Amino acid sequence: MKKIINAVDLVEEQMICGLVKAHPDYLKKIDDELIVVRAEKKEGKVALISGGGSGHEPAHAGYVGKGMLDAAVAGAVYTSPSVDPIYEGIKAIDAGKGVLMVIKNYTGDVMNFELAGEQAEEDDDIKVAKVVVNDDVAVDGSLYTVGRRGVAGTIFVHKIAGAKAETGAELEEVQAVAQKVIDNVRTMGMAINPSTVPAAGVPGFELSETEMEIGIGIHGEPGVKKADLEPADAIVDQLLDKILADIDYVGSDVAVMVNGCGGTPLMELYIVNNRVADVLAEKGINIYKTYVGNYMTSLECEGFSISLLKLDDELKELLDAPADTPAFKQI
Amino acid sequence: MKKIINAVDLVEEQMICGLVKAHPDYLKKIDDELIVVRAEKKEGKVALISGGGSGHEPAHAGYVGKGMLDAAVAGAVYTSPSVDPIYEGIKAIDAGKGVLMVIKNYTGDVMNFELAGEQAEEDDDIKVAKVVVNDDVAVDGSLYTVGRRGVAGTIFVHKIAGAKAETGAELEEVQAVAQKVIDNVRTMGMAINPSTVPAAGVPGFELSETEMEIGIGIHGEPGVKKADLEPADAIVDQLLDKILADIDYVGSDVAVMVNGCGGTPLMELYIVNNRVADVLAEKGINIYKTYVGNYMTSLECEGFSISLLKLDDELKELLDAPADTPAFKQI
Repeated sequence: MKKIINAVDLVEEQMICGLVKAHPDYLKKIDDELIVVRAEKKEGKVALISGGGSGHEPAHAGYVGKGMLDAAVAGAVYTSPSVDPIYEGIKAIDAGKGVLMVIKNYTGDVMNFELAGEQAEEDDDIKVAKVVVNDDVAVDGSLYTVGRRGVAGTIFVHKIAGAKAETGAELEEVQAVAQKVIDNVRTMGMAINPSTVPAAGVPGFELSETEMEIGIGIHGEPGVKKADLEPADAIVDQLLDKILADIDYVGSDVAVMVNGCGGTPLMELYIVNNRVADVLAEKGINIYKTYVGNYMTSLECEGFSISLLKLDDELKELLDAPADTPAFKQI
Repeated sequence: MKKIINAVDLVEEQMICGLVKAHPDYLKKIDDELIVVRAEKKEGKVALISGGGSGHEPAHAGYVGKGMLDAAVAGAVYTSPSVDPIYEGIKAIDAGKGVLMVIKNYTGDVMNFELAGEQAEEDDDIKVAKVVVNDDVAVDGSLYTVGRRGVAGTIFVHKIAGAKAETGAELEEVQAVAQKVIDNVRTMGMAINPSTVPAAGVPGFELSETEMEIGIGIHGEPGVKKADLEPADAIVDQLLDKILADIDYVGSDVAVMVNGCGGTPLMELYIVNNRVADVLAEKGINIYKTYVGNYMTSLECEGFSISLLKLDDELKELLDAPADTPAFKQI
């Protein structure tokens, strides 16, 4: 295992500390916990919390800030945070209007967030609602999940529900628009090289020099199939076929995210987007906005995912709203 | 060679097309050339052009936009653009107040930009000035360079000279502030895994599973030494020692950039920044602003560089000015 780290058992703590030291105007860390909250608590709005295992940076702590999240809770690499820090995070950000939990659909995450939310409701009388993101069309059920997995489409939930919360909307309204995003976003990914969890020390899976994994999850869990590596355009076509078969996007406006897995050169993500744009144009799907970059990563994994979000006027307005976080800025 | 591409001879063109298709509100491409300019030409200001070999994405085309560049010209991967496209780029962006060329110090880039600038002056009566960025303290002269190499510090030149140009300043003033950045920025990098130029098909250098290269350039050219891989903190200390020996930063305000080489997980960059912040604090160097991310990459190379820019009031104000480009947004 070749990594730029100090010690396997320090990666999460030192990563969060390094993030907060880079952005003290945006973020602060809660002592002794892997919880990041806004440097200045925003009053008078529904608060948003998300999180999950580490290793997906900038998800989720990089999205804490104006127009997106109020707190992010990290677990160990690829491991759900436990109930206590999620509960502490909820208490730290509630401003009296309630807290929306944005949970990626992984069994551990869902269970721990739900327990934390119940505790905050019962012990602290905080109104807590949740949404569960399950945008990955690759597989229905996997190593860590019942049902579809939650992956890069989660960023659109952060962005749009975050913008809604900034308007002063009520908890039910913020939850409803978050659910609308979930209902309209689909993602599928692939990888050509795996990531290595520091504590494991060996890659999460193996691929030969000529193989790729189609439909991979964000923890390196298996996808649809191993196959011979093909040209970028052919890979894009396969992923889009599956996404487009799941929702009828034709004639709609969409937001596109071409997300890098952490080790993928930006050059390759743009080559991917070149094909995505052409295919959508051919099919009569109108691209309203495109995001290309490392939004939801898997350590140094090399690969990408494509997300499509079908937009109506409400979603467009909220997607266009300003955001100012370390990892996502929109003017 | 395992890459997500279509064909070796198409990577630059398809990458630029994919970038422009992602950001049509910001960028347009000049037909048949690897030249990217702002979607809407800005009148009444000095125009900035930069560029160099491809493979450093988002440099430089990702920095075309409000508050930064007016044009970026790309060559083949790790290869200087030729004189003609640079000349075409200069002509496309001149708005009567002249053009500043921001050149990284590599022999081919300097020669071709200079020839293009002379041609624009002679044939088209365009005022052209240049600065040559040489921020890399690792080596004095290398495979492709006489003198120090220009690396990630170039982004600070784009940002600050770009902000100055937006104020309506004259060419000599924009050039002077760009030179002030160059005089005050120093960078040093390292890598644990190489990149592979598509047309070459094999990695640019070799490192064993336990080795790193200290002082590497952005084309994988050799640095100071190969050495046994050490903990992140020890690596940071080595790089900072060399940077801090070159300029007296003690007691000053600085901007920090922890730049990823393209294949480095963001987690590791934050672990690096955790140490950078601590060391600078110990030494009495005040961090004014920190940037952590992939700003000047080397394809899928795994490694990072640290840049320190010593700031005075003028540089702070220009660094803080808003910018809105695909790859660099500041609110």
